[in-house]
Amino acid sequence: MQEDELATLLRGADEVLIKQELVKKLEEGRPLRIKAGFDPTAPDLHLGHTVLINKLKQFQDFGHEVLFLIGDFTGMIGDPTGKNVTRKPLTRDEVIDNAKTYEEQIFKILDPVKTLVMFNSSWMNAMSPADLIQLAAKHTVARMLERDDFSKRFKGGQPIAIHEFLYPLIQGYDSVAMKADVELGGTDQKFNLLVGRQLQEVYGQKPQVVITMPILEGLDGVQKMSKSLNNYIGIADAADDMFGKLMSISDELMWRYFELLSFRPMTEIKLWMQECEQGANPRDYKVKLAQEIIERFHDAGAASKALENFEARFQRGAIPDDMDEVELKVEGGGCCIANLLKDTGLTSSTSEAIRLIKQGAVKIDGEKVSDPKLEIAVNSENVYQVGKRKFARVKITA
Amino acid sequence: MQEDELATLLRGADEVLIKQELVKKLEEGRPLRIKAGFDPTAPDLHLGHTVLINKLKQFQDFGHEVLFLIGDFTGMIGDPTGKNVTRKPLTRDEVIDNAKTYEEQIFKILDPVKTLVMFNSSWMNAMSPADLIQLAAKHTVARMLERDDFSKRFKGGQPIAIHEFLYPLIQGYDSVAMKADVELGGTDQKFNLLVGRQLQEVYGQKPQVVITMPILEGLDGVQKMSKSLNNYIGIADAADDMFGKLMSISDELMWRYFELLSFRPMTEIKLWMQECEQGANPRDYKVKLAQEIIERFHDAGAASKALENFEARFQRGAIPDDMDEVELKVEGGGCCIANLLKDTGLTSSTSEAIRLIKQGAVKIDGEKVSDPKLEIAVNSENVYQVGKRKFARVKITA
Repeated sequence: MQEDELATLLRGADEVLIKQELVKKLEEGRPLRIKAGFDPTAPDLHLGHTVLINKLKQFQDFGHEVLFLIGDFTGMIGDPTGKNVTRKPLTRDEVIDNAKTYEEQIFKILDPVKTLVMFNSSWMNAMSPADLIQLAAKHTVARMLERDDFSKRFKGGQPIAIHEFLYPLIQGYDSVAMKADVELGGTDQKFNLLVGRQLQEVYGQKPQVVITMPILEGLDGVQKMSKSLNNYIGIADAADDMFGKLMSISDELMWRYFELLSFRPMTEIKLWMQECEQGANPRDYKVKLAQEIIERFHDAGAASKALENFEARFQRGAIPDDMDEVELKVEGGGCCIANLLKDTGLTSSTSEAIRLIKQGAVKIDGEKVSDPKLEIAVNSENVYQVGKRKFARVKITA
Repeated sequence: MQEDELATLLRGADEVLIKQELVKKLEEGRPLRIKAGFDPTAPDLHLGHTVLINKLKQFQDFGHEVLFLIGDFTGMIGDPTGKNVTRKPLTRDEVIDNAKTYEEQIFKILDPVKTLVMFNSSWMNAMSPADLIQLAAKHTVARMLERDDFSKRFKGGQPIAIHEFLYPLIQGYDSVAMKADVELGGTDQKFNLLVGRQLQEVYGQKPQVVITMPILEGLDGVQKMSKSLNNYIGIADAADDMFGKLMSISDELMWRYFELLSFRPMTEIKLWMQECEQGANPRDYKVKLAQEIIERFHDAGAASKALENFEARFQRGAIPDDMDEVELKVEGGGCCIANLLKDTGLTSSTSEAIRLIKQGAVKIDGEKVSDPKLEIAVNSENVYQVGKRKFARVKITA
């Protein structure tokens, strides 16, 4: 075990069960089998997901083997209660397509040579119904009801279908089939990861070490990063978007992101924190973070270009190259600037438009507008800017 | 539907769910599929078990088809928790042997032509694990915990293994696979029988009618008939034993047995009850009951012989032809009568022996003994009798 191995592997982790077992396994000197399970439905990863994948990468860098598990067995069943009509059973082809999509994304971080993509259908479909019953016998109803969400639903009188008790067991059995030494998961997965430990013991294996990683906060710094909250950075996002979004986060969140999303050594990051405390501008470090992330998902060229664009747009106030182009049909000879801003979505209402114009936050072709009643003529085409970041090229037609 | 069909089919039943559905099914005029499930472990039936089998017979007599289900699927799994070491998994051969033993016994009551012996392993082993999960999704944890024994164990903090929740579903699914119109079971099976109804509806079938039969009281008239309580009459018991045991039951229990064990019409039985109320000797009706039962499991000749033997033994006090033969080894020249009675098991203690001798309840070769200190010589061979029914031929050796 290299001196910094343990520290790196535990960086940012929420919990390790059991640390001493991890130390022992690392001391064996062999490549450990590191399991992480993923949903088989169409993957479209954002930085929140990469917290776990980064941790897998760190294990790989120390010579360990990543077992990237796609839980397709249950995905191919769909929602057997029939209540969730949107959760249709996946076909074999869809599973394979989704696996490819995963690979395209995760291999931006992981080393394909040290990554084994596995499908739990390969051992689950080979089970007899008697095997599955044997598996179900390995856990009790009372212990399953200890899981937070089950406990809440049970107490709240919300139905739990019996097959839901089988899914954590299947997930746990995956660890047996995969002979996992370590399993990584989000903190919300702790219960299921521990079922894996327990089942491995029942099946005569050494229990896996469980490492839970925190759920990453979104751009707001409060709620978890998620698409539905629109506080995310997708790993397929354009470089400029990534840059802009990362530059918008709070300083506090920047250090959190550094710990969980950057591969820079913690010693270096801690030095930077000190520099900021001593008066350095956090903005300069945010740029470093943004550059690293963009290099990972695009390349170094894209990273420098994004910085350039950003500086051009937000620091010198220039008009960007790319922006929405809108054609606005109006009746009569023209339209009022406030209505235009609202109709093109640059402001949410005419009253907001009027307020922003009065504050001097609205420009036409780089020139400040001061009259909220300004009429824009038909057949004109101009670039409208609201605040620092909202632009649109608008053409007025009759 | 014949006029007395419904009345006969419901005779003695504890509950029918739902009676109106049964009436409708009977009115269709086709042979109904009548399911009853049995344990696959070595069957050794007593009269308690025949309450259900008699009901199946009544259905057969009206032209319906009996589906005699042997639940071998779970039997071949054994106890998957490994806690019950005596519940070893049955082999295929053992299942077949047990089925034969069942047939030998049930065909003393049922018509083999109208009886289909089925094994649930034939459809359960054909399931994929995904099918089993689909099945598990058809019921909720909360509803399963409503079952009496589960509810008690859960509240009492006793573990319930998760596979135990699957067994009622498998039993219920059997009804789907068998397309059962009616399922019979003991009152203790009501929950599982209703799962069958529910699952048939989920799988698009008309729900089976559930008929629960009471659990038969043993010879004591209080506790349920069972081997472990030694209050039973086995259907393989000797005719004389059956006769003696049936003659020993209370008058009240006799009427209960008439309803549940006799095929005599209820009109006739009610007439006999009236006759008894008007002074007739219940003993004469007990003889009728005993004769019917012995004819069923032996034959008419055995029934008359048993009556003869019974009358000879208990009414004229004669010594029966068959009895235990015991050789008793003693040290010294002989042994005391009280010790002999205890050692041969005719009394439970020497003090009981002494008391019974004093009461005049002990005979040697038909002669009353009055001396509790009587010495019995070595090499003697005599018939010892205690009370009316206990006999043994005892030989004393050195």
